Amino acid sequence: MDLTLQQKQEIEELRVSSYETRRATVALLEEILYKPIPVLDHGFVRVIDYMGDDAAIVQAARVSYGKGTKKVSDDSGLINYLLRHRHTTPFEMCEIKYHVKVPIFIARQWIRHRTANVNEYSARYSVLDREFYIPSVEQLAMQSKQNHQGRGALLKGEEAQHVLDLLKEDATRNYDHYVEMLNEDPDGNIIDEARGGLARELARMNLTLNTYTQWYWKIDLHNLLHFLSLRADPHAQYEIRVYADAMLETVERWVPIAYKAFIQYRVGGISLSAAALEIVKNMLAGKSVSQEASKMSKREWRELMETLGQKE
Amino acid sequence: MDLTLQQKQEIEELRVSSYETRRATVALLEEILYKPIPVLDHGFVRVIDYMGDDAAIVQAARVSYGKGTKKVSDDSGLINYLLRHRHTTPFEMCEIKYHVKVPIFIARQWIRHRTANVNEYSARYSVLDREFYIPSVEQLAMQSKQNHQGRGALLKGEEAQHVLDLLKEDATRNYDHYVEMLNEDPDGNIIDEARGGLARELARMNLTLNTYTQWYWKIDLHNLLHFLSLRADPHAQYEIRVYADAMLETVERWVPIAYKAFIQYRVGGISLSAAALEIVKNMLAGKSVSQEASKMSKREWRELMETLGQKE
Amino acid sequence: MDLTLQQKQEIEELRVSSYETRRATVALLEEILYKPIPVLDHGFVRVIDYMGDDAAIVQAARVSYGKGTKKVSDDSGLINYLLRHRHTTPFEMCEIKYHVKVPIFIARQWIRHRTANVNEYSARYSVLDREFYIPSVEQLAMQSKQNHQGRGALLKGEEAQHVLDLLKEDATRNYDHYVEMLNEDPDGNIIDEARGGLARELARMNLTLNTYTQWYWKIDLHNLLHFLSLRADPHAQYEIRVYADAMLETVERWVPIAYKAFIQYRVGGISLSAAALEIVKNMLAGKSVSQEASKMSKREWRELMETLGQKE
Amino acid sequence: MDLTLQQKQEIEELRVSSYETRRATVALLEEILYKPIPVLDHGFVRVIDYMGDDAAIVQAARVSYGKGTKKVSDDSGLINYLLRHRHTTPFEMCEIKYHVKVPIFIARQWIRHRTANVNEYSARYSVLDREFYIPSVEQLAMQSKQNHQGRGALLKGEEAQHVLDLLKEDATRNYDHYVEMLNEDPDGNIIDEARGGLARELARMNLTLNTYTQWYWKIDLHNLLHFLSLRADPHAQYEIRVYADAMLETVERWVPIAYKAFIQYRVGGISLSAAALEIVKNMLAGKSVSQEASKMSKREWRELMETLGQKE
Repeated sequence: MDLTLQQKQEIEELRVSSYETRRATVALLEEILYKPIPVLDHGFVRVIDYMGDDAAIVQAARVSYGKGTKKVSDDSGLINYLLRHRHTTPFEMCEIKYHVKVPIFIARQWIRHRTANVNEYSARYSVLDREFYIPSVEQLAMQSKQNHQGRGALLKGEEAQHVLDLLKEDATRNYDHYVEMLNEDPDGNIIDEARGGLARELARMNLTLNTYTQWYWKIDLHNLLHFLSLRADPHAQYEIRVYADAMLETVERWVPIAYKAFIQYRVGGISLSAAALEIVKNMLAGKSVSQEASKMSKREWRELMETLGQKE
Repeated sequence: MDLTLQQKQEIEELRVSSYETRRATVALLEEILYKPIPVLDHGFVRVIDYMGDDAAIVQAARVSYGKGTKKVSDDSGLINYLLRHRHTTPFEMCEIKYHVKVPIFIARQWIRHRTANVNEYSARYSVLDREFYIPSVEQLAMQSKQNHQGRGALLKGEEAQHVLDLLKEDATRNYDHYVEMLNEDPDGNIIDEARGGLARELARMNLTLNTYTQWYWKIDLHNLLHFLSLRADPHAQYEIRVYADAMLETVERWVPIAYKAFIQYRVGGISLSAAALEIVKNMLAGKSVSQEASKMSKREWRELMETLGQKE
Repeated sequence: MDLTLQQKQEIEELRVSSYETRRATVALLEEILYKPIPVLDHGFVRVIDYMGDDAAIVQAARVSYGKGTKKVSDDSGLINYLLRHRHTTPFEMCEIKYHVKVPIFIARQWIRHRTANVNEYSARYSVLDREFYIPSVEQLAMQSKQNHQGRGALLKGEEAQHVLDLLKEDATRNYDHYVEMLNEDPDGNIIDEARGGLARELARMNLTLNTYTQWYWKIDLHNLLHFLSLRADPHAQYEIRVYADAMLETVERWVPIAYKAFIQYRVGGISLSAAALEIVKNMLAGKSVSQEASKMSKREWRELMETLGQKE
Repeated sequence: MDLTLQQKQEIEELRVSSYETRRATVALLEEILYKPIPVLDHGFVRVIDYMGDDAAIVQAARVSYGKGTKKVSDDSGLINYLLRHRHTTPFEMCEIKYHVKVPIFIARQWIRHRTANVNEYSARYSVLDREFYIPSVEQLAMQSKQNHQGRGALLKGEEAQHVLDLLKEDATRNYDHYVEMLNEDPDGNIIDEARGGLARELARMNLTLNTYTQWYWKIDLHNLLHFLSLRADPHAQYEIRVYADAMLETVERWVPIAYKAFIQYRVGGISLSAAALEIVKNMLAGKSVSQEASKMSKREWRELMETLGQKE
């Protein structure tokens, strides 16, 4: 993550500002407000603004005139109850806004979550920065044999190096040609006065999908938790998971009680199908069970046994 | 609007609180934070929380590292431009949360706007207050002859009085029977220990549609302006328009530049169809025009001439 | 459910129509198309239109040029997989449209699900029918002692009769006064030429919440299943559950494979929190467990033991 | 647009199928069902399914038991009225599903419209086709001097040729390296058994933004018209406008009355701000007007005068 001096100054200016407010305020989140949390080689996530706190969830659930909260233990009990029973609307009463820098191929996964507000940096209007994601060697995995959309073992040294070389060369060359076609550098200076430059909305098509883009992204707590439950999951692609992990930290600072409930009931929890529940009941009753006798596929059976800590 | 002493105290407690924050803060809106603005005979609207200000619109449109705003005149020019060209996403970056008390038949109109977050006071869980909307005499209008969903002239004195009597008697009696069926008063005290009480989720069905309900309602600025453009419109029902008017005041305090642009381009603006534009051009060119020669219906023609300040 | 002769004829006219189409078609659903399924005393649900079938889920998941389906067993395996792993977007590719008649207090619960399209019969524009929901005696339950928003034991005979009398009398009287204020009967005939009638948008406020309303309601399969998982649940209020049950039947006809997966993984399935999973593992390993030693509340513990079929 | 033989056969198979249905059916749309409409050099749009017709809009607006339509002229009057007064919900009762092949940088603009359902071809799961968008010479425009996000004059011959060469070479080389890194061709055959292949979810990052992707995209008529009003607009980027134009043709076939109203009131219509309306009124009253005396910016003034057909 390489901020320019001016960007650093602009951020610092916001961070030293201090205002009086009657609104709910969260000291732990204020601590990191505006501050970029580095992710991948050039990306970041930073909290720009927020609305509400743990108490706001309780207040909305009770449709209160005042704060609506009682003892911390009561609030915590209520928040657990709401999350457990999927009473989601009180969690929608908290809102957070991020500024994110992320490679385009990951931005495309991200944007599928439609229940957020987005303002993306426009490559029709401006020239993109010369920054692209190059994976570290520990991330250069082969296609998984089992999982059609996952990673398997790491590439060997030479093969890995060759991949890295290709990625770097191609992204660099394509960016250079992008600037050449634009006839304009990222600061807006014309390169060769003797010729025209291709329209920005066209030239951008030459960039590679690991080029970084950035956006403001605003979402309510319920939908954020849903996003995080999918994207902080071990099955999510590594390159989006690291963003989800960074955001999880901000959630822990922001609404610690809701965060704890989320870990307890979503992240650490599991779902059992009707057939799986039947198996568990039978096992507890000491009856013998088997994949063949169950209505489950081999894959489901294997996953269930792993989940239950059973050796096959 | 009749708040209990406890409700007043709870509100006051929130209003005297003061915190330090690095977030964008709007002094004029802070002034009225938590304070109920009376609407109709027992209703209110009050701002519970907000995120962002005029500068946040600019900041998001520019995907800035810092505040992103320049001179006030530049910001104002950009906000006008965005609103005029329906670049709506930067307006979604501001969010506001209201607590509203409103008669149920109006709440039912309100909830059709689906792009908001809502927590309603639950009549499955709690007993509703003994409050129902009774229109003032100046609102007791007859069905309009022209407009199938509008109001015409006022009812005459005796007829008006009869309507008021019916509304009051029926709402009161039905509420009394609601409490009788519940066998429980609004404070949760059992009335007659010798008998059971009907479940709250059933008893509520006896209430009239002018009974007040309340909710927390959270929405982003773009969708709020869309709501207000429909509900502060002269064609909207009076009983929802007064809520829209009260909210418009809060918007003026909150984001004065966006408010001004909204009044200029939406509220005070008009749409012309292709045919209407043709008529205007012809009129400006000194050509004679007529409803018959236009492709417009009589109603459209009449509305256009009124809009243009032409006498027929 | 009392349809007028004209309504019956209009429905029949649609039902005898037959067209050629290249679109996916589901014979079992066509059988009941347009036909009202009675719910409660005067309500109904009827399917007006639909888009897609089980194969359309597969086709969208594969982004196919053709049907995209292979063997039924493969399709079924894929649909199970998608539902199990919450890959929800392929289910959004099927759409269904209902016409529903439902008491207003239930319509208010229903409308909280915001991811549907709704056109409600307008009581600003038209006069509502003289139909209100009166529960059967088997539904006249007392407030539950355990569950703040549930029902307990049934009311005794005399008390029940008293409740029924109140509900009937109040709804009838309020409707009669509604018509009197309107000075217009449901067919639009003026009752007393000598006087004016109150505007419909006002008169409606005198109606009770058990008055029936109706709407067209259109939703995609993913969001419909989410709605049904909440509203066909034993904790849902009886009066909305019967609508969910009726719709479940239509889903079984429409997309039998998705329906089966839904029953297996959602309706019949359960969620275990991190703590609950730990307990299950310990039980399977033969270790002793107790509520006190767990991190669970008494209520959670009791629910878990019930779910697992354990006696306490 | 180059379909494989198998793709053509799969499409043909669907097109020869014919089923009986009781649902509303539109012959003109059935004619082109499943058939790709070519867009750009390798892209297409094709209608996969639809729900409803013009009559369905009327039927929903009236919450009818039967078809709900009367004479064509009445239906047309009602649809015009609904569109003119922005009564949008009846238009949401029609739904359409497209299969689209589109370059990624355009797909990224497209996906900003969040009120649709999408299933995109997964490059985590599958290998993308060797197809990228190369603009025709008539599209190789320079950056506009006036419009920060628009196109100006065309590039000269040699410059244009150089741009084309760069685009072709870079896209081709990057795709070749993509396949090399994957060690797998688009048909899934391993290229070199002696080495591993990079995971698909990683290799894709080397592709250029003009690579084609494809998706199923489903949307209701109201939101489709909103999308088209923005994307068929002269200010939209050419490469998305051609898709919007192709879809407009499908809309004309599908719901001809709604289409006509849309052209009349949206596409061919304009908005006037409060200040602009004042100017028009003054001009009609024969008063002299000027930009200086108006509250409008020079740009707004110029645009208004152009719209009104006035020479400056």
